Amino acid sequence: MLSVIGIGPGSEAMMTQEAIAALQEADIVVGYKTYTHLVKKWTADKEVIKTGMCKEIERCQIAIDLAEQGKNVAMVCSGDAGIYGMAGLILELVSKQRRNVQVRVVSGITASIASAALLGAPLMHDFCHISLSDLLTPWTVIEKRIIAAAQADFVICFYNPRSRGREGHLAKAFELMTPWKAETTPVGVVKAAGRKKQEKWVTTFSQMDFSQVDMTSLVIVGNQSTYLSDGLMITPRGYVI
Amino acid sequence: MLSVIGIGPGSEAMMTQEAIAALQEADIVVGYKTYTHLVKKWTADKEVIKTGMCKEIERCQIAIDLAEQGKNVAMVCSGDAGIYGMAGLILELVSKQRRNVQVRVVSGITASIASAALLGAPLMHDFCHISLSDLLTPWTVIEKRIIAAAQADFVICFYNPRSRGREGHLAKAFELMTPWKAETTPVGVVKAAGRKKQEKWVTTFSQMDFSQVDMTSLVIVGNQSTYLSDGLMITPRGYVI
Repeated sequence: MLSVIGIGPGSEAMMTQEAIAALQEADIVVGYKTYTHLVKKWTADKEVIKTGMCKEIERCQIAIDLAEQGKNVAMVCSGDAGIYGMAGLILELVSKQRRNVQVRVVSGITASIASAALLGAPLMHDFCHISLSDLLTPWTVIEKRIIAAAQADFVICFYNPRSRGREGHLAKAFELMTPWKAETTPVGVVKAAGRKKQEKWVTTFSQMDFSQVDMTSLVIVGNQSTYLSDGLMITPRGYVI
Repeated sequence: MLSVIGIGPGSEAMMTQEAIAALQEADIVVGYKTYTHLVKKWTADKEVIKTGMCKEIERCQIAIDLAEQGKNVAMVCSGDAGIYGMAGLILELVSKQRRNVQVRVVSGITASIASAALLGAPLMHDFCHISLSDLLTPWTVIEKRIIAAAQADFVICFYNPRSRGREGHLAKAFELMTPWKAETTPVGVVKAAGRKKQEKWVTTFSQMDFSQVDMTSLVIVGNQSTYLSDGLMITPRGYVI
């Protein structure tokens, strides 16, 4: 059995019952070292295999091999395992290599949901997720999605907004959205949601300071109805009150 | 204190630690009767105020009034409180009425995440949420979003896909997407995720049977790369394997 577990953004409070149970039942825990560290409370008595960043294929292959040998393996992912996590790659490898492994995906709280709760209620209407990392996706595809989402007035959650080698992507995304997003459109940023170094702030589209955003950040850009009140970001659902 | 709690799709397994703790700490639990029933294990010793469907404003007003009187109130929502849930309406009312109430939003697993885990890994790339209910949103806005999302090749999660009075909305949505979604595009449906009557199936864009979908269903339409393998719906993240 191979459980691909979304551990949520980082705090134990945001883990599901199912994720904790799956970790407790596992013989071996595999994951990127930051994530295995976040769940060390549950893995003290277990074998833990940590791999570095960008070693996703290697990491998944190790987990699949161990599971095929009969071990109960837990692959830990931050947020939800099925949203920019390892569930897809695991299933792709198992399928393509015709491996005899039972895979279970255990849901977790993804960064947009955790960040929205900290910012107020910005995701109360139709929204989308766009990753600004072009490591695995052509930038032209990303641009097309940014423009479509802005045109159709979605609330937009930017994953991987800014990191070394991609310093300009978030500013470029804002430039692309400019024809459709008013200067006063609220923007919320949450850094390291649910972790010790958590920070959050709200600003507006025209006042956005890109330099404060890093790879642990999630950026939410409101729709035409989103407003700020007492420091909270609220997107109305449409009730007449 | 007013905690607006996302209880996840229905099973205890998918509740977070924080949601359970917030329920346990509450004096009074308020919610739509289906949702208060789902958490009755945690509320046996508490006052529970149940309201019917479409009584959202009334329900939120009751919770705010009680919290302002000093009670520790838990408002329960299915899925995540901030995604088509009550967090937004609560914050709107508190803000507009200048009420003296501390509001905390407690994150939950929303239907798209729970359904994706059951279907495989369909949300591994950029996706969006669109509600097909036009009770609070003009249908023209919904149409615009469906077309934009299909054009830009997002994976699309349809909330409130079909219910009494809106029998034709999902078929209409598929009609609008036809120019951009190939006949073979995988589609996944999950009914009553995490509840006793849970059902799921995968099909393709051209084979979709709308009559099987109801208001407890979540429909996920893949992007150009999504494929079916052994009954699972997989959207590649882009790794070369």
